[in-house]
Amino acid sequence: MTQDEIAPDRVTAATPSGCRHVVGMVGAGQLARMTCQAAVSLGIGFRVLAAAPDESAAQVCAGTQVGDYRSLDDLLAFGVGCDVMTFDHEHVSGSHLSALERAGHTVRPGPGALRYAQDKGAMRELLAGLGVACPRSARVTSLGDVTEFAAGRGWPVVLKAVSGGYDGRGVWVCATPDEAVAVLAHGIDLLVEEHIAFERELAVLVARSPSGQAAVYPVVQTVQRNGICREVLAPAPGLAEARAVAAQELSLSIAARVGVTGMLAVELFEMPGGLLVNELAMRPHNSGHWTIEGATTSQFEQHLRAVLDLPLGAPALAARHAVMVNVLGGEEPDLHSRLVHVMAADPAVKVHLYGKLVRPGRKVGHVTAVGDDIEDLRDRARRAASYLSCGSEREQPGGTGR
Amino acid sequence: MTQDEIAPDRVTAATPSGCRHVVGMVGAGQLARMTCQAAVSLGIGFRVLAAAPDESAAQVCAGTQVGDYRSLDDLLAFGVGCDVMTFDHEHVSGSHLSALERAGHTVRPGPGALRYAQDKGAMRELLAGLGVACPRSARVTSLGDVTEFAAGRGWPVVLKAVSGGYDGRGVWVCATPDEAVAVLAHGIDLLVEEHIAFERELAVLVARSPSGQAAVYPVVQTVQRNGICREVLAPAPGLAEARAVAAQELSLSIAARVGVTGMLAVELFEMPGGLLVNELAMRPHNSGHWTIEGATTSQFEQHLRAVLDLPLGAPALAARHAVMVNVLGGEEPDLHSRLVHVMAADPAVKVHLYGKLVRPGRKVGHVTAVGDDIEDLRDRARRAASYLSCGSEREQPGGTGR
Repeated sequence: MTQDEIAPDRVTAATPSGCRHVVGMVGAGQLARMTCQAAVSLGIGFRVLAAAPDESAAQVCAGTQVGDYRSLDDLLAFGVGCDVMTFDHEHVSGSHLSALERAGHTVRPGPGALRYAQDKGAMRELLAGLGVACPRSARVTSLGDVTEFAAGRGWPVVLKAVSGGYDGRGVWVCATPDEAVAVLAHGIDLLVEEHIAFERELAVLVARSPSGQAAVYPVVQTVQRNGICREVLAPAPGLAEARAVAAQELSLSIAARVGVTGMLAVELFEMPGGLLVNELAMRPHNSGHWTIEGATTSQFEQHLRAVLDLPLGAPALAARHAVMVNVLGGEEPDLHSRLVHVMAADPAVKVHLYGKLVRPGRKVGHVTAVGDDIEDLRDRARRAASYLSCGSEREQPGGTGR
Repeated sequence: MTQDEIAPDRVTAATPSGCRHVVGMVGAGQLARMTCQAAVSLGIGFRVLAAAPDESAAQVCAGTQVGDYRSLDDLLAFGVGCDVMTFDHEHVSGSHLSALERAGHTVRPGPGALRYAQDKGAMRELLAGLGVACPRSARVTSLGDVTEFAAGRGWPVVLKAVSGGYDGRGVWVCATPDEAVAVLAHGIDLLVEEHIAFERELAVLVARSPSGQAAVYPVVQTVQRNGICREVLAPAPGLAEARAVAAQELSLSIAARVGVTGMLAVELFEMPGGLLVNELAMRPHNSGHWTIEGATTSQFEQHLRAVLDLPLGAPALAARHAVMVNVLGGEEPDLHSRLVHVMAADPAVKVHLYGKLVRPGRKVGHVTAVGDDIEDLRDRARRAASYLSCGSEREQPGGTGR
């Protein structure tokens, strides 16, 4: 009657009892955790490859395997019994992805698409080739490269790690050559970009299936601080209809051109004269957590439909507005002692906790409010998230870790 | 890197990483499966006691233990490490429930409340004592008892198993003494009730916490066939406001008087002159599946909040209307080959599959549609459920099993 006695049966038992599809997600963070919830509703078998059994998704997923995404052996073993392999992050190397395909595994998105989420240089070159407006950028290897770039545009400049960055890591705003020297000293592949004085940031989520069906969500506004997403407002308040349509069409065309399968997030800068593409991500994305309550089909269900080549769900808003605020870890680790007060203060706000160890600035959950009055929703979601974070309804501390 | 290697760690790992509460649910059917999904969002540890590892919830719950709810040893072992024990069904004996409490386990709802969901005779006596209108009934042990009851009210009469019935099992409409003889031959404890020519059936869901906080959901209409719930319309169309309020107040007063903790479902007959209480259930209930998409707080999240004595969530409708239609098993077991067509035909309908082996008439899933036009929603939910059931948009076959 103990868990270890029955665990080996459980994985094999899932398939015969009506579960036709098994999706394996490499990585076991909160994206995998929320995808796991969506898989349950559709009767889709779901497994995660976790680095450790206490990772966010590993805690709740019956089909957890522990292994290292950097090990091809572990990836190959994980792929056995999965109809489709997909990803909670973009850190699996292109050579491993190709090796998985050569071994007969179905990898979605495939290495040809994922390359553009893994390599910011390749992404910029692709978008330039498509005629998509982006910040100007160049690969740099020396201070001379940086100062040459800055000579044309002035300081500050933005240095970005070509690969591996997330949540503000791997991005440095450099006001002087000395600051650039410090970044160059890391010895990693770098891109320099012009520093954009944008009006605000927007994001568009697109789902695309191997058959080429695509669905695009309403354009949202994202609010970042220290490179970390703090709030998402859906739909983006006051966005001109023509610009919203342009952002959606642009995102659909990128999805098709890249050949992504699953979710694609396109992060945009809104400028007085138009839009610039900042980043691409090929997985469920923080800018889409609002879809759990705020859209007819959540991005997590949509990702599963897309990678399984099932017909896509409706991406329409389920309410007039939705506001999502991330909960960042504060100094006090015990979220649950504060959860009770948040529940008492606002019985209609939706709390999502990821089961992650609380570290200051780490994303440990999010709060969503849906309804008619966006100012009210934003106020309530902020209060709830702040209280969960630090026991106060004032501002949360700055974020610094995933 | 296999599941059995990491499973023992997973249960213990769940608690340190921010999971303050652990709820153990006895039983691993679809109610436990959907409660498991709700627990993930709140970061609540969740375990199920499953009869077998391929049961609906056992397939997806990382905290599955296999055991027999009829065995006190298994129940006691399951309770270790659970902060609260609760139930997917009402079949755990009162003596076992009391023994669990004596052993120091927190059991919600407790045996004092559950008794009224387990023993229809006790339930009728309680409600009579509260002055609640019910069908007239009596305990019977012989044909003489039945004919004496029928002498006052006429045939047909309804014979009901005092305990253990569900989904139409344990309920017999008897038109003649011969039919009653056949039921009496089962040798089980029986109740006779008058056969009610109701206008329609309604249901009210109430959540109540140990602190006494209660939340009541909008009154819904349920459509039963062969004793099995087929459709739920939320809110009940055309229900007079005064009668809706009366049904909610009645249900709240029953919840308080019984001292239930968790969800209480009150099934009602609507008559020209008022309401009669038909049944009570003390757990998440089929009449509340619509709340997943159709209410701010799902009944599954609400049950967890209530049994943990957390503040209750808002039970308000999240859309103007919600319609839920059960998917009953048909002759063809492979639901997933039909799922693709349902998804293609209606991208906005929400499908929930339980991972259960398909048997004709068994509840294997449900479909919910939410929106403004109830006729449209009902039509779409019926089509989707029928197609999943039998590959046709015509009527599903009759239901005969859980």
